[in-house]
Amino acid sequence: MVGMEMLRVLAQRRFSDGRVTALASERSTGATVPYDQRSLEVKLLDENAFQGVDIALFAASSEVAATFAPMAVESGALVIDNSSAWRMKPNVPLVVPEVNGADIATNQGIIANPNCCAIPLTVILNPLMKAVGLERVLVSTYQSASGAGKALVDELEQQTRAIARGEQPRAAVYPYQLAYNVVPGGWRAEADGHNEEEVKIVNETRKILHQPELRIAATCVRVPVPVGHGESVFVETTKKISAADARRLLEAAPGVIVQDDPETMLYPTPQRIAGTDEVYVGRIRNDPSTSHGLALWIVSDNLRKGAALNAVQIAERAAQMGVAGAGRRLASKGRA
Amino acid sequence: MVGMEMLRVLAQRRFSDGRVTALASERSTGATVPYDQRSLEVKLLDENAFQGVDIALFAASSEVAATFAPMAVESGALVIDNSSAWRMKPNVPLVVPEVNGADIATNQGIIANPNCCAIPLTVILNPLMKAVGLERVLVSTYQSASGAGKALVDELEQQTRAIARGEQPRAAVYPYQLAYNVVPGGWRAEADGHNEEEVKIVNETRKILHQPELRIAATCVRVPVPVGHGESVFVETTKKISAADARRLLEAAPGVIVQDDPETMLYPTPQRIAGTDEVYVGRIRNDPSTSHGLALWIVSDNLRKGAALNAVQIAERAAQMGVAGAGRRLASKGRA
Repeated sequence: MVGMEMLRVLAQRRFSDGRVTALASERSTGATVPYDQRSLEVKLLDENAFQGVDIALFAASSEVAATFAPMAVESGALVIDNSSAWRMKPNVPLVVPEVNGADIATNQGIIANPNCCAIPLTVILNPLMKAVGLERVLVSTYQSASGAGKALVDELEQQTRAIARGEQPRAAVYPYQLAYNVVPGGWRAEADGHNEEEVKIVNETRKILHQPELRIAATCVRVPVPVGHGESVFVETTKKISAADARRLLEAAPGVIVQDDPETMLYPTPQRIAGTDEVYVGRIRNDPSTSHGLALWIVSDNLRKGAALNAVQIAERAAQMGVAGAGRRLASKGRA
Repeated sequence: MVGMEMLRVLAQRRFSDGRVTALASERSTGATVPYDQRSLEVKLLDENAFQGVDIALFAASSEVAATFAPMAVESGALVIDNSSAWRMKPNVPLVVPEVNGADIATNQGIIANPNCCAIPLTVILNPLMKAVGLERVLVSTYQSASGAGKALVDELEQQTRAIARGEQPRAAVYPYQLAYNVVPGGWRAEADGHNEEEVKIVNETRKILHQPELRIAATCVRVPVPVGHGESVFVETTKKISAADARRLLEAAPGVIVQDDPETMLYPTPQRIAGTDEVYVGRIRNDPSTSHGLALWIVSDNLRKGAALNAVQIAERAAQMGVAGAGRRLASKGRA
């Protein structure tokens, strides 16, 4: 789903001037994928595939990224990888352009695209951090099916049709029925009762914000929504900030749209914002349980800002900065 | 929905020995409601309706409860009211039997049944409070449609059928489409950006736990689930407790079922536990952002333990204690 969204975003943003090649494993070779009102034939991903490629956008598994990203770098490409394979490597910048775009300059050929919850979270936390400092962040997520891939979106649709027919929905792709349900898991178990997704949010938020000791915890929950992740966030800040000042700060922050009027029941929801590019925030208020805290509700399109769009924004910024892999110079109009 | 569930719970628990009268406003008078494999004719709720009634279970609006509860008390009934009309009155006990059942003895005719999120939350917090003390509680909810009443459950079903047919769902009852969406609101706005539901959770949790100064905050979110509320909770405790000790404590707590094995992806979900009586807890782990904290995931059936069952459990406990309204003695087998 992220790969297809990357093609849409590339076309919409007129990046790469139409010079785009689609690569995939042998299984998909010869198929076509839509790009800018035409079709691209899918070519084979192998060690020779990156000849002449300036920027390689990876939307594949961690295993594929671990194997092929170094080959792409070897061929002279700048790799922007959406998997988690490279994110926590010390010599790989993990980038949200609005937050730490300058880190792009430190790349040695690979730039990692962060987790779909860490991206919107850091877009919102960064202006707060700069203004008043961060002490502690507690996140509960409401993550859509598309975060797990097309198979779960299809399963959610099948289950929805079964419910509409009065039948018992079946769960095959996912360990629980997702339609008419919320599930606090489905991710691989990690140490101390956390799961893989929670560990990613903690570690990647720290790395993007350059706060390796940030006190942060997350509980991740899957919800029956096709596209768009929600996050309920409690933030403790170093200096006190009023909800009104936080709202003004966020209204001025890059890539952020504030939708926040409890009186008229205005707040962002995934169904309304799916397909758009910004990170939305609402329900901004002071946390009554502490003197220096805020409560927030964040929503963004996990396929766009949470994945494909952020990757293309990294590519755009790298092109503006004249930065390419391993010290190479990027032609002003690259071939992605 | 809560009134119908009360009739089911009364029949299942063989409470009141079949001596049950159904009361409603003029609009429903003469209709029948199912009770224990027979039908009850609905009688008119007026000032004479409570003659000879020992226990009056109210599942109506706050306005109805404010008007008619005093009339029921005047007639000699013990009122157990599910609305929010009486919950925060100083002379009205707000009771979760496993937590503060002894408060029943202080009633002056009315006992209030708490909010559907406050009940399961206090069932889980109480054993932790007794063992290690509570410093701070942060809650993000995942609340089902039935918490807003039958109209929203019906609208969710209609929207689900529309999606299955490939049509655009319509929202009439609720300000947002709920199917395929999550919505951080829909409740009435209160001061400082909070909504009515969040204020209830804060105030009622403090009252039930006898912790008027407890530091607690909530963000309430509606999810497209028919029945069963989830809560992601971060708890800071006074003394340190390991996740393993917390798990053992909760396994021994009354009314609690622990479902918690990340390795086998075992955790409670609303779809699986709907229709059952206990409060379920899983994802029990130490909060990595603090030295004295836990993260938990709580689920319970909001119509049963979150409403009707808890009300009937109050009635049962009151009967066991021989407590009736305003100093009156309750016959050992009352007429509800």
